[in-house]
Amino acid sequence: MLDTAPLPAHVLDELRRILPRPRAVLDAREDLLVYGYDGTWYEGFPQVVAIPESAEQVAEIVRLANRERLAVTPRAMGSSLSGGPVPLRGGIVIDTKRMNRILEIDEVNFVAVVQPGVINADLQKAVESRGLFYPPDPSSMRQSAIGGNVAENAGGSRCLKYGVTADYVMGLQVVLPTGEIIRTGGKMVKNVTGYNLRALFTGAEGTLGVITEATLRLLKKPPFTLTAMAVFASIVDAAQCVTEVMSAGLTPCAIEMMDDVTMSCVEEMFHLGLPVEREAILLFAVDGNHRAIVDGEMEALSELARKAGALEVRVAADEAESNALWQARRGISPALARKRPNKLGEDVSIPRSEIPRMVRAVRAIAAKYALTIPLFGHVGDGNLHPNILCDRHDPQELERVGAAAREIFEAAVACGGTLSGEHGIGLLKKQFIELDLGSAQVEAMRRIKTALDPNGIMNPGKIFPEPGGIDAFKL
Amino acid sequence: MLDTAPLPAHVLDELRRILPRPRAVLDAREDLLVYGYDGTWYEGFPQVVAIPESAEQVAEIVRLANRERLAVTPRAMGSSLSGGPVPLRGGIVIDTKRMNRILEIDEVNFVAVVQPGVINADLQKAVESRGLFYPPDPSSMRQSAIGGNVAENAGGSRCLKYGVTADYVMGLQVVLPTGEIIRTGGKMVKNVTGYNLRALFTGAEGTLGVITEATLRLLKKPPFTLTAMAVFASIVDAAQCVTEVMSAGLTPCAIEMMDDVTMSCVEEMFHLGLPVEREAILLFAVDGNHRAIVDGEMEALSELARKAGALEVRVAADEAESNALWQARRGISPALARKRPNKLGEDVSIPRSEIPRMVRAVRAIAAKYALTIPLFGHVGDGNLHPNILCDRHDPQELERVGAAAREIFEAAVACGGTLSGEHGIGLLKKQFIELDLGSAQVEAMRRIKTALDPNGIMNPGKIFPEPGGIDAFKL
Repeated sequence: MLDTAPLPAHVLDELRRILPRPRAVLDAREDLLVYGYDGTWYEGFPQVVAIPESAEQVAEIVRLANRERLAVTPRAMGSSLSGGPVPLRGGIVIDTKRMNRILEIDEVNFVAVVQPGVINADLQKAVESRGLFYPPDPSSMRQSAIGGNVAENAGGSRCLKYGVTADYVMGLQVVLPTGEIIRTGGKMVKNVTGYNLRALFTGAEGTLGVITEATLRLLKKPPFTLTAMAVFASIVDAAQCVTEVMSAGLTPCAIEMMDDVTMSCVEEMFHLGLPVEREAILLFAVDGNHRAIVDGEMEALSELARKAGALEVRVAADEAESNALWQARRGISPALARKRPNKLGEDVSIPRSEIPRMVRAVRAIAAKYALTIPLFGHVGDGNLHPNILCDRHDPQELERVGAAAREIFEAAVACGGTLSGEHGIGLLKKQFIELDLGSAQVEAMRRIKTALDPNGIMNPGKIFPEPGGIDAFKL
Repeated sequence: MLDTAPLPAHVLDELRRILPRPRAVLDAREDLLVYGYDGTWYEGFPQVVAIPESAEQVAEIVRLANRERLAVTPRAMGSSLSGGPVPLRGGIVIDTKRMNRILEIDEVNFVAVVQPGVINADLQKAVESRGLFYPPDPSSMRQSAIGGNVAENAGGSRCLKYGVTADYVMGLQVVLPTGEIIRTGGKMVKNVTGYNLRALFTGAEGTLGVITEATLRLLKKPPFTLTAMAVFASIVDAAQCVTEVMSAGLTPCAIEMMDDVTMSCVEEMFHLGLPVEREAILLFAVDGNHRAIVDGEMEALSELARKAGALEVRVAADEAESNALWQARRGISPALARKRPNKLGEDVSIPRSEIPRMVRAVRAIAAKYALTIPLFGHVGDGNLHPNILCDRHDPQELERVGAAAREIFEAAVACGGTLSGEHGIGLLKKQFIELDLGSAQVEAMRRIKTALDPNGIMNPGKIFPEPGGIDAFKL
């Protein structure tokens, strides 16, 4: 399936001409190997890795690939949880790690202009040093880069109050699959000139072009933040509490959930004193510009949580306590990864009114298929991460994983929700996309893809189901 | 140019079969005439008007039109300021006025589900009666409907703090140009399943499909609002004040500007006591959940305005005074329309740092071409509405208008801005779109258009420049 044939010599020569710097074109097997993976269990193998430093170089590479009909897989830091940067069809991986400069922080227009290889946390730190704020905070923020964040339309905890990556993308420079460089949007706040290509490229998972620069909206950093943990004997009570908090019109900046299985995995790794004997906790964060109001909002939240059945609501006394709680949250993914050989991280997103129903459905599916499915996520947004722990080399177990995943997706769609809130479709969910969107809509998306990428070179094999294509649960 | 030939009898028969209710298919000349116009000076003439009541009927009409290669022009209330609903190529106008129901106001998920014919102000009233809030408030909000608001991605005064229509579109039901009905998005907050078609259809000016339903995000209505007027001797000082307010990180819900010419036109019509002898005023609004904070923000704003050279800052003492100021703002368009036979309303959008430069540029262009160009707009967003007053039947004046419009666009692009912040490209700006986006980007948009509308039936002649097509300044 994977095209591991060596590249024609003239292609390699031309790449070396485009990228004359040392180690900008990699074709040794040991170099290529590490570019075959992301945060999922998929595997690919590129024929060559190109490491450009400018949009012009990216454009030259893409024009070459388009002429030679070679696959192009754009790659930022490769922490995707849906298979996006896995080079399925060999070809060229474009690694953006040398395009990692913050080009500008504009304090008048509240805008940052960055290259795609800038690490999310580095951008946050840079803008916060000037009293500014870039809210999107995927749990991978210390590893993942803006190019990948934009390609996947990454979310995060604070997106509950502040919105996802797409809400911060004011402009993009993109190399189209046919090799043209375009700029869509910029530093202006309002823009309705032509179709909204910024929004189309954001979350297109690298299938419509290579993002070479992003103009990102910034806010003023709110100086006050409080974090609290609410402990529940019943996970359904916790879920109901979230629905009630959100429908009361409160605007916490984050509400995260962890169930008992999640807590014990995290506890084993980090020893933070989480109440593992309870069925679920919620983490709340509240922020703002006025201390008294932040205090008042936290009080209102705590009272609602208690009314909804919280056994205890503990507001973090200081930053250390607050950091420990967020460390627990961000540590979930590595903690779960240690538990069993593999995990299938899902990412369903549902209306907030349906959180209790979805939580019940996931618990029932776990029981039905005798699988361990820790449940956590950005529950305030209705974005849940049921992670199916398994050994993918056990064919019988893998079959149960596939059946459970399908039922989780079906439950999400039945709740009026969708397959993915922030990870993308990639390889992991592509065979389920029609279940969610219907065939006419998927066909419309395919037509857009073909219109912009007539030779199908740009990140092929992702998003769209293919007859005889890779099955998430078989590979 | 306009196809005023009568429709083939079998098409009319089939439309009457699809829409059996009385007066749902109009083909009498006197009925058609009123469907030829919008808020611009363009004229068209449809061959027939279809007034459906359901998405299924819309889909049947579109399939018929696609088979017969007839143009389809979707029309909500026809208040567009860029020519969007003008039926250039005859064909079928689809009038959505009988699809005017608010289908649901969901107080748990903070969502309204509406048909395209719902008037913006009616939706606002309905949700406000339940303590909820739909922020987008185009000045046309008492006339314009949600279908048009979504098609044009309408803005408004409050969009400064709350964002534009696109920021509230969570889901759409759309009839594609090939007649399929799709649903993109829904009540879930986060959604990255496939390409973001919601965002693509929002602001596509009816060229990619007919919007038959919208799922809109609601907020909780902030109970406290204050309005103030700041008076400036110099319009450049006023512009500089806006840049300073916004870069200070204050978040007023609106900042509007009116120059002296605008004020005197409004004053002639409404007699509100505006300081017409001064060069400019700014209107500020501040809102929020806490009275003391709203007061504090208004105080900070007023102080900044005074430092920036405001001669006077008057905070409206009560709702009556505040309403009078907003009446003045919303009355600009009708007031200017009385002044000269015609007005060309422009809509450039620029980075906030460039407001003073843009204001100077527009004043200089007005002087250069001896034209009256009142300047007003949502200046806090960098969205300015220079309106060129003229008599379009005076060929010499019209030529100056065309030259001035081009220079205004060139100045906006030179400021890092764009042709349109909220009105759309339509007919008015299509010959300038490449100046802004470049030919490669416009070509990418054309390819998307053709991919979804292979026969080019959906609102033809809009957005994209055509060789030998209609010239905004000649028609």
